[in-house]
Amino acid sequence: MSTRIFSQQTIADLSQREQVNFVNALSGFKSANLLGTQSTRGINNLALVSSAFHVGANPPLMGMIMRPHTVTRDSLQNIKDTSVFTLNHVNQGILKQAHQCAARYAPEQSEFDSVGLTPQMSNVVAAPFVQQSKVKIALEVAQITLIEQNETEFVLGKIVEVIIENDCVLNDGYIDLEQAGSAVVSGLDSYHITQRVDRFSYPKPNKPIHSIWNRDDTKS
Amino acid sequence: MSTRIFSQQTIADLSQREQVNFVNALSGFKSANLLGTQSTRGINNLALVSSAFHVGANPPLMGMIMRPHTVTRDSLQNIKDTSVFTLNHVNQGILKQAHQCAARYAPEQSEFDSVGLTPQMSNVVAAPFVQQSKVKIALEVAQITLIEQNETEFVLGKIVEVIIENDCVLNDGYIDLEQAGSAVVSGLDSYHITQRVDRFSYPKPNKPIHSIWNRDDTKS
Repeated sequence: MSTRIFSQQTIADLSQREQVNFVNALSGFKSANLLGTQSTRGINNLALVSSAFHVGANPPLMGMIMRPHTVTRDSLQNIKDTSVFTLNHVNQGILKQAHQCAARYAPEQSEFDSVGLTPQMSNVVAAPFVQQSKVKIALEVAQITLIEQNETEFVLGKIVEVIIENDCVLNDGYIDLEQAGSAVVSGLDSYHITQRVDRFSYPKPNKPIHSIWNRDDTKS
Repeated sequence: MSTRIFSQQTIADLSQREQVNFVNALSGFKSANLLGTQSTRGINNLALVSSAFHVGANPPLMGMIMRPHTVTRDSLQNIKDTSVFTLNHVNQGILKQAHQCAARYAPEQSEFDSVGLTPQMSNVVAAPFVQQSKVKIALEVAQITLIEQNETEFVLGKIVEVIIENDCVLNDGYIDLEQAGSAVVSGLDSYHITQRVDRFSYPKPNKPIHSIWNRDDTKS
C-alpha cells in the first residue's frame, strides 16, 4: 500500500476547502451532538456540534470548541448570556434534521421549527433539550477560555442533568450508545453508525485481555 | 420508551466505577488514537487515548485532555520534555494491542515491544509513529493549559506532518476513515467500527440537503 506524506507546507498549499475537509477528518471520528441554547429574548436555538468531548468523570465535565465567527455564534452568545446549554446525541432517525441545523438561519428564527425537531424544556437549566434525542445532557458553564492560536473558545461545562432512555444504561454504568442509536461524524459532513466489536477487560501488563460484553446486563 | 433522569446527586451517588463508565460514555463516541512519545533517555512510549479532538483547520490544530496522575503520566512527561508527540489512528487490525497499551507498564518498558506494535520514526519530530496505523500525525506542542476543575491538562498541538495511505484521501481533501479502518471508542473499553450512512451537501436555510458521497473520487 503506497502512502502519502503531507508536510506543513503540503497542508498549507491545499485549497481552503481541501484543508478544512482534510484536517477536520484527521482527528478521527467525532461525536454528533445538537447544542440547545436559549437567547435572553426566549428564542430556542439549536446547533450541530462535532466538537463536544469528555473532560472528566468526577466532577462530571465535558468540553466543546466553539468558533465565535461562524454559524454557531448565536449559540456561543446564548451560552455566555445564560451560562447554560444542553447537548443531545444525534441518532440515526434525525441525521438530516441535525445536519440541516448547521445552516445559517437568522438569529430570530428557531432551528427547531425550521428543521422539525421538538424542544423539551429542562427543569434544571434555561435551555431546551431535543425531545427526539435518546441521550440528553444539561450543563452549566464552568469556564470559557480563549484559544489564542486560532481565536476559538474552549467551553468547559459541568454536567447537571442527564435524561436517557432506560434500556441504554447497563448495570456497571456504561451507556450503550448503539442502543441509543448515537451517530458519528467524520470531517464536516459524513455521518456513520457503529457496530460494536467488543468490550475489553481492564488491561494489565503480561495478562491477556478478554471480552466483558454482556448486553443483558441492563441497569434496572 | 421509559426514561431515567440522573440529577447531579444521582450521578454523585453512583459507585466510582459506575460514574466513570457512565460519564465517559456520555459525550458520545470518541476517536481511538495511539499516542507516541519518546523519553529523554530514548525509550519509545505508546499510550491509548480517546481524548484527542479537532481544534481547527487553519492553522491545523488538535487537542487532547491528559490526566497527570494516571497511566498516561509517562506520555505527558515525555511531551513536556520533548515538545512533540504523534497520534496514530487505531484500526480494526490492532484493537487488542491498542487496548493493551493502556496497561500500567514500567517507565523503562516500551509498550511497542510489550504489545507487538512497530515503532516508525518520524523525520520531522523525535517521537515514534505506529507503523501499523494507516493515519499517522506528528504534532508540536503549541500550548499546555491546566484545567483547574479536575487537574487535567489540555495539550494543544500543531500538526506538522501526516502520513496516510494513498487511497484514503479523496479529491476534496476528505479522509475516508472507513477505508482507513479507523475505530471508535465508547466509555472506557468498548470498541466499534463504523458504517457510513451518507455525506450530505452544505446546508442552507430552506433548501433540502442531498448526498455528496462518491467513493471513486480518490485524490491522485
